[in-house]
Amino acid sequence: MIPHLTTALSGPLLDLERSILNAMPAIEHWLRGQWQEHAAPFYASVDLRNSGFKLAPVDTNLFPGGFNNLNPDFLPLCVQAAMAAIEKVCPEARGVLLVPENHTRNTFYLQNVAALTNILRLAGLNVRVGSLLPETTAARTIDLPNGQSIVLEPLRRKGNRLTVEGFDPCAVLLNNDLSAGVPEILKGLEQPVIPPLIAGWSTRRKSRHFTAYDQVAQAFAKLIGIDPWLINPYFATCGQINFKERRGEECLAAHVDEILKNVREKYREYGITEAPFAVVKADAGTYGMGVMMVRDASEVLELNRNQRKKMAVVKEGLEVHEVLVQEGVYTYESVDDAVAEPVIYMIDHFVVGGFYRVHTSRGKDENLNAPGMHFVPLAFETSCLTPDFTGSPDCPPNRFYAYSVVARLALVAAAIELEQYPTEPELAATVA
Amino acid sequence: MIPHLTTALSGPLLDLERSILNAMPAIEHWLRGQWQEHAAPFYASVDLRNSGFKLAPVDTNLFPGGFNNLNPDFLPLCVQAAMAAIEKVCPEARGVLLVPENHTRNTFYLQNVAALTNILRLAGLNVRVGSLLPETTAARTIDLPNGQSIVLEPLRRKGNRLTVEGFDPCAVLLNNDLSAGVPEILKGLEQPVIPPLIAGWSTRRKSRHFTAYDQVAQAFAKLIGIDPWLINPYFATCGQINFKERRGEECLAAHVDEILKNVREKYREYGITEAPFAVVKADAGTYGMGVMMVRDASEVLELNRNQRKKMAVVKEGLEVHEVLVQEGVYTYESVDDAVAEPVIYMIDHFVVGGFYRVHTSRGKDENLNAPGMHFVPLAFETSCLTPDFTGSPDCPPNRFYAYSVVARLALVAAAIELEQYPTEPELAATVA
Repeated sequence: MIPHLTTALSGPLLDLERSILNAMPAIEHWLRGQWQEHAAPFYASVDLRNSGFKLAPVDTNLFPGGFNNLNPDFLPLCVQAAMAAIEKVCPEARGVLLVPENHTRNTFYLQNVAALTNILRLAGLNVRVGSLLPETTAARTIDLPNGQSIVLEPLRRKGNRLTVEGFDPCAVLLNNDLSAGVPEILKGLEQPVIPPLIAGWSTRRKSRHFTAYDQVAQAFAKLIGIDPWLINPYFATCGQINFKERRGEECLAAHVDEILKNVREKYREYGITEAPFAVVKADAGTYGMGVMMVRDASEVLELNRNQRKKMAVVKEGLEVHEVLVQEGVYTYESVDDAVAEPVIYMIDHFVVGGFYRVHTSRGKDENLNAPGMHFVPLAFETSCLTPDFTGSPDCPPNRFYAYSVVARLALVAAAIELEQYPTEPELAATVA
Repeated sequence: MIPHLTTALSGPLLDLERSILNAMPAIEHWLRGQWQEHAAPFYASVDLRNSGFKLAPVDTNLFPGGFNNLNPDFLPLCVQAAMAAIEKVCPEARGVLLVPENHTRNTFYLQNVAALTNILRLAGLNVRVGSLLPETTAARTIDLPNGQSIVLEPLRRKGNRLTVEGFDPCAVLLNNDLSAGVPEILKGLEQPVIPPLIAGWSTRRKSRHFTAYDQVAQAFAKLIGIDPWLINPYFATCGQINFKERRGEECLAAHVDEILKNVREKYREYGITEAPFAVVKADAGTYGMGVMMVRDASEVLELNRNQRKKMAVVKEGLEVHEVLVQEGVYTYESVDDAVAEPVIYMIDHFVVGGFYRVHTSRGKDENLNAPGMHFVPLAFETSCLTPDFTGSPDCPPNRFYAYSVVARLALVAAAIELEQYPTEPELAATVA
């Protein structure tokens, strides 16, 4: 049984969903134009928040880790999109080496690797999985909770080629966000690395993403005649934070204050009675570490030792010095009173599905992607490609279509963002 | 309830399906290469015959008329493929004018038009349907058996643009095979016409298609190491036939004789005990008119008046002077003892689904697409994109994958074929 989904919708979002649905031909035409100008990332997932009055992306992941959570009915959609992606990025490829994250004990994550491997195989590639972990010295099979299994093999560098035993791949597909920096073994490869190394967190900054999104949201809002705030959270950055040594907290407090003030104004304009909140998170990094919700600027000045410690490092021990302050967007979607956050999956510029992160013990203003958090994934029942023109603007196919539009706006932003980072050779030159 | 599908499979096809499945990465890589060299038609359907010892295309339709027969579960796949097709062929288009066949009393066909319209709308286009029929002088709504309805509007020519009232489309999408020639109103349009007019039967010849297919089948057979005959029916053409005046029948008899002889040899080689047969059909035209099955060359010399009359004209009264003689491929697929012929649907170069034409009162060597024939469509239950590597070579997902491969070979042939016809301006120059 799939639980019933309830959303407390108020006026503005219904208006927004209606605006999106009515403007569909203009939107798809505009998006086609964007993809003529910008190359879509190979794949991505976008975390959305649907607050009833606002629908906005809060995070764009270029190394998506939940393909196993998608509705299996939409596997053909993933395969078809992967075929299109391969044609664009590496048409000559026969064999691809998939390099996953190092959490080999997280069998949920490994199910994602298995799902991704399956999609790529069905798209016609030979796929092997190469582990960055030094303790992987021989191929080993890991059994997965869903009855499948996966083989992890040690990566071998041969000159400027990345290989595994008996397999010299045409391309390297990263499913590792490089939070710990770019491993030596991945540097200067002659094979194409997809997504490029600069899409990892050692280069990428959320602030760059949301700066690009600002621009995209402005253009889109103008296109369909809406207030861009309805799809775009306010944000600001502080570049010189040291949580351990309590430096830069005033900058943070000032930005939090500014953002809360701006949000308060917008809430007043739209008659929203909720209390505004802001989210403070590491500008580089993922997995919901280094994330904090605040309702008042004073909170960032009064952090206790544990809170500061929690904010100071993200995944793989990376230290946090750059921080993003983002308008908090309430989650008003729920399943049996549990908060539900939609995550949209894309391969190339095609929306291939999505799921809800459902968490029963969290509030609507909390981060659902927290460390150690065991959300229940709830796959979307219908695709995001088949809005129902005769249905209400908020019936599931139409809501999912609205999600697909906002997620693709974030994807356009990611494409623009990626154009702005130095390429790997440029990066190497800077370091050297 | 969906009937159980049974196929009497013998050795060679199981071998063929196994060869296709095993070579999947090589096949998809090779196909990617083909699509780098040749532009896929906007859409197509391919009639296949699965004889147990042979799997081959017998007809490739560039104006497919059965989108309504596809499994509705795969609508998202159609939408995604249509998005990709539009991006390639007419990225700038917002509005498209669909020009269907003239059979307005065939509500089954009109359901196809409605299904196609829906796919294009979901892909983000404004779509209107313009009728070529002179009696369509005002917009009229036609109710369809499935409860939907469709609006047909009179076409208006404005200078070199094709329009309907209040709608100036960016592109014209033909779902009309132009059997009666190219109507004046479609000539010299400044809007892109998709597929191009030269894809219609006033230019197209089946023999050109199968000549191109010969070449494709050879290359493919070499790629996966099989006898090309297993996927390719013998054929020959006669260019100077006049059935009414009984001219050219000796040429036809000679070709039938030659083909039957060659097939007999192949049957002997593979230990097939069935009697070979040949199909005689109009080289230009469709809808199963002007089609005849023969088991001996003498049959074409002994045609009675009715048979000759039947062969002399195809759809829309077009006279038949060029004839294709094709090796007959037995249909060994059946549903409850009814013969079932698979039809594969493609948008751009993506296989989006298929169905079986099921006919209870016909034999395994008869043409299932005969005039007035009311077949029962049986939608494929699974997609053609998700072969099961752990299943038997003949389990449905693997059989459908084999279908998708052979259908795409025919699509490559269609792409090559279309490159060979003169373009519309060249054609106009020749006529003038």
